[in-house]
Amino acid sequence: MTPDAAGTGFWWERDELRYRHGRLTFAGADVAALAATAEGPLYLYSAARIRANLARLREALRSTERPHRVYYAMKANRNPQILSMLAGTGECGIDICSPDELDHALACGFPVERISFTGTGVSRRDMARLLAHDGLTINCDSIGMIDRIGDQLPGREIGIRVNPGRGVGYGDDPRLTYAGMRTTKFGIYREQWDAALATVRNRHLRVTSLHFHVGCGYLDRQLGDWEAALAAGLQFLDQLPDVRVVNIGGGLGLPHRAGDQPLDLARWASALRHHFAGRPVEIAVEPGDYLVKDAGMLVLGVTNVERKRDTLFVSVDGGFNLHPEPAFYGLPCEPVACVPRTADVAAWQRCTIAGNINEALDLWGEDIAMPPFEEGDYIALLNAGGYGAAMSSNHCMRGKFQERLI
Amino acid sequence: MTPDAAGTGFWWERDELRYRHGRLTFAGADVAALAATAEGPLYLYSAARIRANLARLREALRSTERPHRVYYAMKANRNPQILSMLAGTGECGIDICSPDELDHALACGFPVERISFTGTGVSRRDMARLLAHDGLTINCDSIGMIDRIGDQLPGREIGIRVNPGRGVGYGDDPRLTYAGMRTTKFGIYREQWDAALATVRNRHLRVTSLHFHVGCGYLDRQLGDWEAALAAGLQFLDQLPDVRVVNIGGGLGLPHRAGDQPLDLARWASALRHHFAGRPVEIAVEPGDYLVKDAGMLVLGVTNVERKRDTLFVSVDGGFNLHPEPAFYGLPCEPVACVPRTADVAAWQRCTIAGNINEALDLWGEDIAMPPFEEGDYIALLNAGGYGAAMSSNHCMRGKFQERLI
Repeated sequence: MTPDAAGTGFWWERDELRYRHGRLTFAGADVAALAATAEGPLYLYSAARIRANLARLREALRSTERPHRVYYAMKANRNPQILSMLAGTGECGIDICSPDELDHALACGFPVERISFTGTGVSRRDMARLLAHDGLTINCDSIGMIDRIGDQLPGREIGIRVNPGRGVGYGDDPRLTYAGMRTTKFGIYREQWDAALATVRNRHLRVTSLHFHVGCGYLDRQLGDWEAALAAGLQFLDQLPDVRVVNIGGGLGLPHRAGDQPLDLARWASALRHHFAGRPVEIAVEPGDYLVKDAGMLVLGVTNVERKRDTLFVSVDGGFNLHPEPAFYGLPCEPVACVPRTADVAAWQRCTIAGNINEALDLWGEDIAMPPFEEGDYIALLNAGGYGAAMSSNHCMRGKFQERLI
Repeated sequence: MTPDAAGTGFWWERDELRYRHGRLTFAGADVAALAATAEGPLYLYSAARIRANLARLREALRSTERPHRVYYAMKANRNPQILSMLAGTGECGIDICSPDELDHALACGFPVERISFTGTGVSRRDMARLLAHDGLTINCDSIGMIDRIGDQLPGREIGIRVNPGRGVGYGDDPRLTYAGMRTTKFGIYREQWDAALATVRNRHLRVTSLHFHVGCGYLDRQLGDWEAALAAGLQFLDQLPDVRVVNIGGGLGLPHRAGDQPLDLARWASALRHHFAGRPVEIAVEPGDYLVKDAGMLVLGVTNVERKRDTLFVSVDGGFNLHPEPAFYGLPCEPVACVPRTADVAAWQRCTIAGNINEALDLWGEDIAMPPFEEGDYIALLNAGGYGAAMSSNHCMRGKFQERLI
């Protein structure tokens, strides 16, 4: 909860997320007041912020002067209210990666023409469920998948996910690297490209979509690498005359910590305009976190405040099973006091915020400066809108939470 | 799937888990045949193995010549059939860490007298649900928890979880360290002991149970450290004249890899006998993985076999969301072919087994020697009985699986 350099506010504050009269407000609502109406952990989402994120991205895409479309990556957050709202805007489609996600997308109002499937390890049983839907874009992640579609529906239109062998990840974490020097399970590599094209021909398929996903959480300093990966991905187009859409995947990052700057979308779009120049294709992009992450927070109640040896522990009523990113991926959800007991930063104390799961790694923040807390206070964990509820488990049977879209 | 040094078998083979006529059998069942009756991922559990693990542990405890009891740690696996079977043996109680686990334990047949609660970050709401049950052992993890029980039920019997400040973890992974140099959220430390005892006196409570959990997955080479932590934990007894039960926690490890030796239970029990000599208390132990981990496997179907660049990928129909330990904790679930296509090790190939989740870290094994696979084959992931199904999530809406207790 670091104040910004000027000492006048916090790095994460923005119009619809800031303190007003000493109380954290989000999308016009008083966070602590809302939390008090919930029994236990509460996810809050801001519809306005999701729409603003989408509008900002679409504006950048417009500046490419190319036709374009956005597919929201459902796996980041499948809350039905969020999905229905996005479907209702008419301004974005949806990216899915499993047959159950397909059913969920349809149930939330996305027409099949605006749904794009990009999955891995797809079984024949999965495939049968996908192929039942004409008009569904299916991006094939392997030659085996191309072959199986051709076996069942020769002549069908397909997409191919390629792997340009270059990419960018969060702080170069190999676990979050989808394309790069290390061979991943994703997509078809240049080394297997001829075999893939032969399968397409033999099965009389038509490749109308090209897909690659070359980054995860990239910000400005990774844009150079991202652009190189983009150029490498586009080279696969040369042998695909029927392609109408090139899906450049997702991975657009956002600030997680004080000092992180927002992604320079103008520069991002300028690179797209440059690399797509002269290519008669539509640009598709597949943001997940970029639309929902900073539009969500997880609000937890303080259950105990107690010093143990050298550490002041602030215990809360929810653990890492509700949002695995801090514990497992090292991606923080900024902890913020909903109603700070003092505005005097000098009275703040270093503390560790601990969840209620019996695992040592279940900590929301370690040795961080926070205002003093008492039992019954609320802490908001910011940037919790993506890969939180969607990845939650019922570990220790502490998996219950509420979700509200404001 | 490494053959053992003699080349005559595999390190994980045992009476009720081995190949017979080229097919993997488990608890008398043909694994591939069972998997073929399930649509998708299948957890198999062996009742006989769970009972054998419990019997072995109880036999070791008998050799301490002290009264003793076993509380199975539900968080490892809460499958109702397993719990009902354990309750039915009458030979073990159950350790729980949340109010919902309490309800589940009661529903599965454990009487409240054989249930022990050891949780962290316990809220007042949690506490009200626990205190509704007379006879429930409640181990307090903090002074705040002692105080709140005393506030609601002065005079009640309680347990206290202490932290001796020493411990052992999996390969010294700080994320799996529950007691040691680094201050954790668990238990009451020596530095706060006087304050804890003062709260007990002021609230007129009676401490009848002492609890500490000093290790996680310990094997023989950690037994020396474990014994030192045990001795340190027992020192807290000196000021607790009413204690009848000392719960030494769980953490007993088991082999995960070729070359790992089973824990020497005789040595473990001998240490207990030595350290409990002259102490008129019952020994309680709280095993989770030790009872269920090697009694469970996750069986997945092969969906594709394909070389990508330098790597042969074997894709399967389940991902790390069904069992997070390999991806997140670095604890392997040994992959084993259910019906190897050849017994000739020379024909085996190095491959990477990849799950069906769109995350780069979703790999069950990397660069391991396995027999050749084809679509439709089955792979059993051994040692999947603990912290698998219990921690599973519906990430990518690929969270479905079946469970069967054989």
